Amino acid sequence: MSQARLMDGTALARRIIEETGERAAVLTERTGTAPCLATVLVGEDPASVTYVRMKQNRCRKAGITSRHVALPAATTTAELVGAVEALSADPGVHGILLQHPVGDHIDERAAFEAIAPGKDVDGVTFASFATMSFGLPGFVSCTPGGIMRLLDAYGVDPAGKRAVVVGRSAILGKPVGMLLLARDATVTYCHSRTRELSAAVREADIVVAAVGRPRLIRGQDVKPGAVVIDAGYNAGNVGDVDFDSAVERASLITPVPGGVGPMTIATLLEQTVRAAARQLGVAEG
Amino acid sequence: MSQARLMDGTALARRIIEETGERAAVLTERTGTAPCLATVLVGEDPASVTYVRMKQNRCRKAGITSRHVALPAATTTAELVGAVEALSADPGVHGILLQHPVGDHIDERAAFEAIAPGKDVDGVTFASFATMSFGLPGFVSCTPGGIMRLLDAYGVDPAGKRAVVVGRSAILGKPVGMLLLARDATVTYCHSRTRELSAAVREADIVVAAVGRPRLIRGQDVKPGAVVIDAGYNAGNVGDVDFDSAVERASLITPVPGGVGPMTIATLLEQTVRAAARQLGVAEG
Repeated sequence: MSQARLMDGTALARRIIEETGERAAVLTERTGTAPCLATVLVGEDPASVTYVRMKQNRCRKAGITSRHVALPAATTTAELVGAVEALSADPGVHGILLQHPVGDHIDERAAFEAIAPGKDVDGVTFASFATMSFGLPGFVSCTPGGIMRLLDAYGVDPAGKRAVVVGRSAILGKPVGMLLLARDATVTYCHSRTRELSAAVREADIVVAAVGRPRLIRGQDVKPGAVVIDAGYNAGNVGDVDFDSAVERASLITPVPGGVGPMTIATLLEQTVRAAARQLGVAEG
Repeated sequence: MSQARLMDGTALARRIIEETGERAAVLTERTGTAPCLATVLVGEDPASVTYVRMKQNRCRKAGITSRHVALPAATTTAELVGAVEALSADPGVHGILLQHPVGDHIDERAAFEAIAPGKDVDGVTFASFATMSFGLPGFVSCTPGGIMRLLDAYGVDPAGKRAVVVGRSAILGKPVGMLLLARDATVTYCHSRTRELSAAVREADIVVAAVGRPRLIRGQDVKPGAVVIDAGYNAGNVGDVDFDSAVERASLITPVPGGVGPMTIATLLEQTVRAAARQLGVAEG
């Protein structure tokens, strides 16, 4: 069969960010207040510093102001929770992003739960996970939400299809499976303890690789015509899918980079503007 | 092959309730306070009245006091939320059970979320769903928790096994799948939109039928040697599994009645005493 069509996350994310920028401008004009995303960073991990700076830059371009809270690596759980609670209570902040990891000595969950649900634009709280799982209104985790947008943009309706999610992390594997289930896919979660992973993946009409192991999913594991979403991110811009062999079997496939990655930040910005609109009392278009 | 061994939920539930009663007695003696479960019933649906009365009777036998809040069918969401919040704040109440359904005019989710997480012994809040899903400490939904206890009691380790959950309700299908995933099963969710349900079920080492359609799962759908858990409950004491044909293929199977049903209430009582122990400041044994 012919090579798969690429799912261009860069182009889709650009469109979403443009539309988000337009909505942010309208909101700012109508209310006199620009949407504001607070970013919280504990310590100085170089990758985290880079991520946060990238998010701030994208915010600026979309007309979203950002407020940065930098805390020392030695911050305690109580101090971090206090800082996040202050942002949750601050009417000038519409969305909160707590960059993780926060350090092993901190109870990350306690810090996440200090984010007010209405400001959880990164979709990390218990409440957001539950609303995603139950198909209720709320904020989604950004990467899973971005994956669903990609599927929609390429006309992939999950209803009745078999979806296999490889990975079960709290911010990626578990929520993307729940979002696919809410859209009526038959969803299988595979992970490090799965026996016969290849056989399980071969059942999938939609594969989401989200496990963080370079090239774990090979072309021979892909059912001909399947949609392959590579949400893996490994050193050297390598995904969880062996692209060169999978592209020969899939009907649609995300490249790495330029597939899922850009969608994450687009979802973050979009949700920030939505949160701001709600908090500023402006009905959404 | 020979007939499946029955998983006797009645006997296991009796043992758990006995142990729970012993723990309740010790707790009452040490603290001067008996564990207390508040039951909340809206309206007079006969089935709900029966369920609540049965739960109260079992509580009494286990040394758990119960407090009943009966509200008229015309109760508003705000009134119900207020009543539940009052119980959440009441130090004399250790666990809260809101009997559902509560009536279509009420926002059931708002009422559930008014239950303090530490008193959510029925495992219905967003927080409980998330802790179940992430393998964190917390209360489990009672039927899913009871199913896991049955598996443990019969030596079924889900790790590495393929589990298929048929049904995706918020209090049964979704959480039991998450509990199986947390125990390292490879989990597939099937539902009304699943194509080729029989083929999907035949992959399962563990089948959980939780959909509420009489005899939906037939023997021919069961992989020889599979463990079959029937959490269905249909008129006339009929489960979601066609028992007579499935018993010929399974290795272990729950009868209806006497399988999953009794485990639900045992889990409720057990969690109520655990909640009371925490709130009364007594370490668990």
